[in-house]
Amino acid sequence: MMDVNVYRLPMAGPSDVSELAKLIENNEINPNDICAIIAQTEGDGYARGYCAQSFELMLSEKTGLSRLEISEKIPMLMIGLTGGLMSPHYTVFTRKNIDGSASSEKRLSLGIKVTRVLLPEEYGTKTQVHLVAQAVRDAMTEAGIEKIEDVHCVEVKCPNLTFDRLNDAISRGKKCVSTNFAEAGSKSKGAAALGVALALGEIKDSDVTDEAICSDFSLFSNVASTSAGNEQVACKVILMGNSNQSVSQYIIGSGVMKDTLDLEGAFTAFRKAGLVFDQSIPQSQRNKIATVFINAGADAKGTIRGRRTTMKSDYLSSYQGIFAKAVINAIVGALIGDTMILASAGYEHQGPLGANLVAVIAKATS
Amino acid sequence: MMDVNVYRLPMAGPSDVSELAKLIENNEINPNDICAIIAQTEGDGYARGYCAQSFELMLSEKTGLSRLEISEKIPMLMIGLTGGLMSPHYTVFTRKNIDGSASSEKRLSLGIKVTRVLLPEEYGTKTQVHLVAQAVRDAMTEAGIEKIEDVHCVEVKCPNLTFDRLNDAISRGKKCVSTNFAEAGSKSKGAAALGVALALGEIKDSDVTDEAICSDFSLFSNVASTSAGNEQVACKVILMGNSNQSVSQYIIGSGVMKDTLDLEGAFTAFRKAGLVFDQSIPQSQRNKIATVFINAGADAKGTIRGRRTTMKSDYLSSYQGIFAKAVINAIVGALIGDTMILASAGYEHQGPLGANLVAVIAKATS
Amino acid sequence: MMDVNVYRLPMAGPSDVSELAKLIENNEINPNDICAIIAQTEGDGYARGYCAQSFELMLSEKTGLSRLEISEKIPMLMIGLTGGLMSPHYTVFTRKNIDGSASSEKRLSLGIKVTRVLLPEEYGTKTQVHLVAQAVRDAMTEAGIEKIEDVHCVEVKCPNLTFDRLNDAISRGKKCVSTNFAEAGSKSKGAAALGVALALGEIKDSDVTDEAICSDFSLFSNVASTSAGNEQVACKVILMGNSNQSVSQYIIGSGVMKDTLDLEGAFTAFRKAGLVFDQSIPQSQRNKIATVFINAGADAKGTIRGRRTTMKSDYLSSYQGIFAKAVINAIVGALIGDTMILASAGYEHQGPLGANLVAVIAKATS
Amino acid sequence: MMDVNVYRLPMAGPSDVSELAKLIENNEINPNDICAIIAQTEGDGYARGYCAQSFELMLSEKTGLSRLEISEKIPMLMIGLTGGLMSPHYTVFTRKNIDGSASSEKRLSLGIKVTRVLLPEEYGTKTQVHLVAQAVRDAMTEAGIEKIEDVHCVEVKCPNLTFDRLNDAISRGKKCVSTNFAEAGSKSKGAAALGVALALGEIKDSDVTDEAICSDFSLFSNVASTSAGNEQVACKVILMGNSNQSVSQYIIGSGVMKDTLDLEGAFTAFRKAGLVFDQSIPQSQRNKIATVFINAGADAKGTIRGRRTTMKSDYLSSYQGIFAKAVINAIVGALIGDTMILASAGYEHQGPLGANLVAVIAKATS
Repeated sequence: MMDVNVYRLPMAGPSDVSELAKLIENNEINPNDICAIIAQTEGDGYARGYCAQSFELMLSEKTGLSRLEISEKIPMLMIGLTGGLMSPHYTVFTRKNIDGSASSEKRLSLGIKVTRVLLPEEYGTKTQVHLVAQAVRDAMTEAGIEKIEDVHCVEVKCPNLTFDRLNDAISRGKKCVSTNFAEAGSKSKGAAALGVALALGEIKDSDVTDEAICSDFSLFSNVASTSAGNEQVACKVILMGNSNQSVSQYIIGSGVMKDTLDLEGAFTAFRKAGLVFDQSIPQSQRNKIATVFINAGADAKGTIRGRRTTMKSDYLSSYQGIFAKAVINAIVGALIGDTMILASAGYEHQGPLGANLVAVIAKATS
Repeated sequence: MMDVNVYRLPMAGPSDVSELAKLIENNEINPNDICAIIAQTEGDGYARGYCAQSFELMLSEKTGLSRLEISEKIPMLMIGLTGGLMSPHYTVFTRKNIDGSASSEKRLSLGIKVTRVLLPEEYGTKTQVHLVAQAVRDAMTEAGIEKIEDVHCVEVKCPNLTFDRLNDAISRGKKCVSTNFAEAGSKSKGAAALGVALALGEIKDSDVTDEAICSDFSLFSNVASTSAGNEQVACKVILMGNSNQSVSQYIIGSGVMKDTLDLEGAFTAFRKAGLVFDQSIPQSQRNKIATVFINAGADAKGTIRGRRTTMKSDYLSSYQGIFAKAVINAIVGALIGDTMILASAGYEHQGPLGANLVAVIAKATS
Repeated sequence: MMDVNVYRLPMAGPSDVSELAKLIENNEINPNDICAIIAQTEGDGYARGYCAQSFELMLSEKTGLSRLEISEKIPMLMIGLTGGLMSPHYTVFTRKNIDGSASSEKRLSLGIKVTRVLLPEEYGTKTQVHLVAQAVRDAMTEAGIEKIEDVHCVEVKCPNLTFDRLNDAISRGKKCVSTNFAEAGSKSKGAAALGVALALGEIKDSDVTDEAICSDFSLFSNVASTSAGNEQVACKVILMGNSNQSVSQYIIGSGVMKDTLDLEGAFTAFRKAGLVFDQSIPQSQRNKIATVFINAGADAKGTIRGRRTTMKSDYLSSYQGIFAKAVINAIVGALIGDTMILASAGYEHQGPLGANLVAVIAKATS
Repeated sequence: MMDVNVYRLPMAGPSDVSELAKLIENNEINPNDICAIIAQTEGDGYARGYCAQSFELMLSEKTGLSRLEISEKIPMLMIGLTGGLMSPHYTVFTRKNIDGSASSEKRLSLGIKVTRVLLPEEYGTKTQVHLVAQAVRDAMTEAGIEKIEDVHCVEVKCPNLTFDRLNDAISRGKKCVSTNFAEAGSKSKGAAALGVALALGEIKDSDVTDEAICSDFSLFSNVASTSAGNEQVACKVILMGNSNQSVSQYIIGSGVMKDTLDLEGAFTAFRKAGLVFDQSIPQSQRNKIATVFINAGADAKGTIRGRRTTMKSDYLSSYQGIFAKAVINAIVGALIGDTMILASAGYEHQGPLGANLVAVIAKATS
C-alpha cells in the first residue's frame, strides 16, 4: 500500500525554498519521501532553473545526496511566468510504502516516469507521442491505477528546441519540426498531450501522425497539462489519480471548463474531489482543498462566447499565455477565495480548443 | 421628463464606429440625441485619440456639425488598454426631453458636466478636487437626482501631466505636484475621485488637503471611476443614477467588491439593478443587462487575502493596471457569461484600497 | 522632365500633421504635388492608421478632395513602433513635371505603383513575388530609370494576414501560407522583397518558388525594405533612384552594412549620395542630408560577430524588431549626429541575413 | 606591489559559469586570487541572484570555502537586463600581492569596499552619501591611488527598497524616502553616485543634502556607475584606477560622452587607456581592449540633440533603461567591432543628465 501526502507552500521569490526546509527541520516531512515538486514560479523562464537549483541545494544539504542525485530522484516541474492574482508557490508530494490492505475507497495515488532523452529532431513528432504514451502507461501501473477514469491529471514537462539543439540536428543532417522555436515548442507540448490521450484511450493509435500534431485539434486529452522548457531533455510525467492501493487522506477529481467562463465545469472538478455544495462553495468545504491544478486554454482563441478579445492581436499578445493563466486563476480563485492555485498555459491538444482543465486535490471526508 | 437609452456596441478595432453608424442609418438612433460615449478601446494610449477622431468624423457626417462641434457637444470617455478576455466596445447614451409626469419608479438618468480647463499646476491638487465636486453637484442637478444614494456611477476623465504642460508651468514659475508623469497622473485621478467623494458627502470638506491626495487612502468614493489622458485639458464628468424625472426603461445599481474575489459585492450591484437570483444569475436575468462598468482595484496591492501576488514586482509590473482590469473583467464576466463589460483601472481614492466598484445598467422589470 | 522634392518633418504624436499643414499654408508645398509620404510613427500598430487618417483629413481640407481620393492618390507608408533614440517623423515627397531637357547629372526620381488587391491565399506566395516585380518594373519606367544600378531604395508595404482574411480564404476552400499570423506576415514581406530582387535582376526567375520564400535566404535584394500591415490589401511600391529625367536638387545613394557594426557599409551610402569625407562626416557634409532610410536586420540572428545576443531569447524578444531598429538607428545616427532617420525592421530577403540597408538622400553639390 | 588581472568571459545563460571554471581547472586562474566579478546578465532581475548563486556554488567547490564565505569574500556586481546587441558576459578581476618596487608607469589597480548594512530609511539619504564616500576613500587607499584623476571607474551596487524593508521601517516608526519602490531605488542610486562625487571632490560637502538627491542634477560624478538590487543590504564599491603600486599589464582610462551621439567622448576613453588612433580604431588597437564599462544616460531625457524620442512616453517606456543600454552598447560597440561590453543604466548624478560614462581597460603598450 502507498501513502501519499500533499503540501502546498508559498514562496517569497524563485529561490525561496524555506517553507519546505522548515517542514523538514520540524520532522513533518522526511526528505527521502519527497517524490515530486510542482512549482508556480514568478519571473521569466530563467527563474525556473533558479528555483530548481535552490531546491537541489537545500535538499542536498538535508539528505546528503549530491545535487545531481536529487535532480535525478525528484522530478521538479516548474511552471513559470505569473500574472494577475497568481501567487507563486509549490506543491510537494511525498510517497511511501506502508503495510496494509486495499482501502474500500480509492485515494490519491501518483505515478512518476521520465522518458528517455529525446533527440531534437524527435521533438513534436509521433516518436514523442509514443514515448510519452508509454511513460503514462508505466506511471499508471506504478500508481496502482487500473481504470482510465481514475486518472485525473497528467502533468508533463517536455523539452524545447534551442539554437544549440537545432544546430546539433542540422549537423547530423536531421530536420526539426520547425526552425521557429515557439512553433517547435508548441509542437513538443502538443505531442506530449497526444501521448497522454493515446495512453488513456482518448484517441486511437491511427490518429497519431506527425501531421496531426498542432493541426487536428479534434484530438485531445481531457486530463493532460503539458509545458516545455529549455532545461528539459526528456519528458517528465507526473500522473495523478485515485487508487485502492493508496491510503492517502486525499482524493483527486477533475473537470473540464468548456470555455473560460464555464463555472459549471470548474464546479464539477470540486465535486469530484468530494466537496459538497450547491451553487457556491462554503468555507467549510474550501478548507478541505489541498491544491488545484489548472490548464488554461483562453489563449487558443481570439474570441469568447462570440465576443472578440485582444488576446492574440494587441501589443502585449506575446504574453497571451500569461493572460490566459491570470484570468482562469482569477475565475477559479474567486470560487474558493484563494488564488494560490496553479495555472499552466497550453492549448495544444489539452482539452478542446479554449477549454480549461481543472484538477482538485482535497481531503477525503470519510 | 427625460428619456435615456443605452446601446452597447462591439468594435473591430479602435477606429471601428460602424455599429453606431448602422443604428443611425436605420433610424434607431437620432445622432442629435447622443449625449455621451464611453468606450473600452484596445491598443495603446494613442488608440483613444484614434477612436475619438473616428467618432467625430462619422458623427460630423451624420449631423452636419463640424468635428469640433461634435467634440464639444458629446463627451467621449475612452478607457484604453485591454487584456485577457476584455472585449473592445463602446456604450452610447442618448437623452431627450419628453412630455410627461414624474414616474413612480426612479429610472436611469444622466448628468454630464465638464470643468473649466485646468492649469498644469492645478492637476492633482485640492483645486481639482473642488472643481470636480462642483461639476458633480451640477451633474446631479441636471440629472434630476436629489438623493445621494441614487447616484451609482460617476465616470471622470481628467488631464495627465505632459512634457509640454510641465514646461509651461515651469516657464510661469509654477510647480506641478510631481515631475514624474506617472505620479502626477495618479494624483490627477486621485483628486478627481476625491471631488466625487466630496460632492456626495463621502468625505468632509476639511478632509480635502493637497497632502491627502494619493496619501490618505482612508478617504474615498464608492461610486467614482476616474482615468486620465494626455488628450484632456479639463475634467469630464458623466454621472449616472436613478431619478423620478426619467422615464427610461433602464435602472442602474452599484456595489463594492471589497476585494477582487468578493463575489457578493458584485452580486449586490446586479441585485440593485433589479436582477433577481439566488447564488448564480440565470440566463433570463442576464438578458436584462444593458452594460456593466467596473473600476478595478487589484493593482493597489501586492497581496490578495494573504496571498502574495507578483502584480507590483514582476517584469510585467508596468502593466499592472491591465492585469487588474483583466482579472476583474474575467471574474464578473464569468458571473454573467459575457466579458464585453467595461473595466477601468485606478485605485486612487476609488473605493477602499483593493476594492472594485461595479455599476450595472439593466432593463427595469416593470 | 520631373522635379522631386523631399521634406523631412517632425511629429509630436501619431496624429500630428501640423508641420506639413504649415508648409502648405505658407505655400512652400502645393498639396497637389505630394506624391508619397513615408512616416516613422510611434505607438503600436494602430497608430499607423491614426496617422494616415490624420493626413487624409488634413489633406482633404487643403485640397478639397475627399478622404478616399487622398488615400488613393497619395501612397502613405507608415513604419510603426519606435524605440531608443528613434525620433517620430515623416518624409513628404513632391513631384511635378516641368519643361526642360535631360540633365547631365542623374538626380533623385520616384516611381510609385500599387499592385492589384491580393487574395489572402496569395500572401507570401510566388504570385505576390510576380505582382511586386511587375510593380517595380513599372515604377522604374515611371521614374525614368533605365539602369538597375540607379535604383537605391524600394520601400514596399504589403498586406498582413488577419482573422477575417484567413476565414475568408477558408470559406472559399483556399489555404493560406500559414495560420500563424506572424509567420504569414513574415512571408508576405519576404515575397515582396523577392519581387524587388526579381525585377532588379538580383535573383533569377527560376529562383522564385513558394518554398524559397522565407527559407532560402541566399536570395535577397540589396535595396528592398518591406513591411506589412493589417490595413493593406495590395502592395504599395515606392521606388527611389537617380535619373537624368529629373532636375531635382537631390540625389540618392545606398550601401549595405553587412552586419550591424559595419560602419564602412553605412559610409558607402553617404558617399554614394555625394557626401565627401574621410573617416567621419563633418558638419558641413551632414548639412546636405535630406533624409535616411534604413532597413534593419539585426533581428535575423542571435549573434553578432561571434558574440551571443539575447535578441531572440529574452523575455522582451517579441519586441526584437524594435530593438533591431533602435540599435541601427543609434549607430547610423551617431555618424551624423541625428537620429530622426527612418528605421524599418525586416530581415526577410532584404539583404543577406543580418545586413542593414542604408539609403541616403542628400542635396547635390553641383 | 599588486598585480591585477582582468578576464572577460562569455556566458550562455545566467547560470553559465563554465568559462571561469575552465580557467580555474587549467590553472590559468587561482580562485583564491579572485577579488571581484562584474556580470552583465540577461533575463529579469531574478537572474542576477541565479547568476550569483551559480558563481558561489562553483567557487565553493573549487576553493573549499562555503557559499557564504565566497559571497562575503568576493563582491559580485550583477548588472541585469540586456537588449539589442548586448552580449551577456562577466569580467573577473584577480589581485595578488607580489614583491617588487613601484613601476614607472601607473597601472590598473583595484580597491574594493563594502559599507555597513544600511537601514531602509537610510536609502537615498545623505547618510548613504557619506557611507559611500567613506568606502570610496578607503577603496582609493587600498588601491594605492593618491590622485583623484587616477580614478576612472567606480561601480557601486546598492540596496533597493522592498515591501519587507518598507514595512520594517514603518514598524519602527521610521519613514523611507518614498513608498514608491522605483523612486526609492532611484534615490538609492543617486545617493551612491553623490557619495562617489563627494569622495572625489567633484562636489562639496555642503552640496550634500537630502533634498538635492535626484533633484539637483547639476551635482554629479564623472566616473560613478551605480545600480541597485533587492538582494543588496549594503553598498558594494569596486573602484578602478591606475596606481604606481600596481604592476598589472593593464591600464584604465575614461571619458564622458556628453550625449549618446558624442563619439568624441568615447574616443577619449579609448585614448586614455593607451589606444592610438585617428578617427577610427584599427584592429591592432582593438586587440588591446580587455573590457569596457559604460554607464548609459539616454533614459534621462526624452530628447536627443533637439529631436524628440519616445523613450519616456511609449508603451515600452517602462523598459527605457534597457533601451538606453542597448543604444549606447551598439554605438560604442560599433567603434570597436564588439558588443560584449558592459552597459549599466542609471542617470542619477552619474555624469550630467543624458551623458554616458565610458571606462576602458586595455593592455599597456610598454
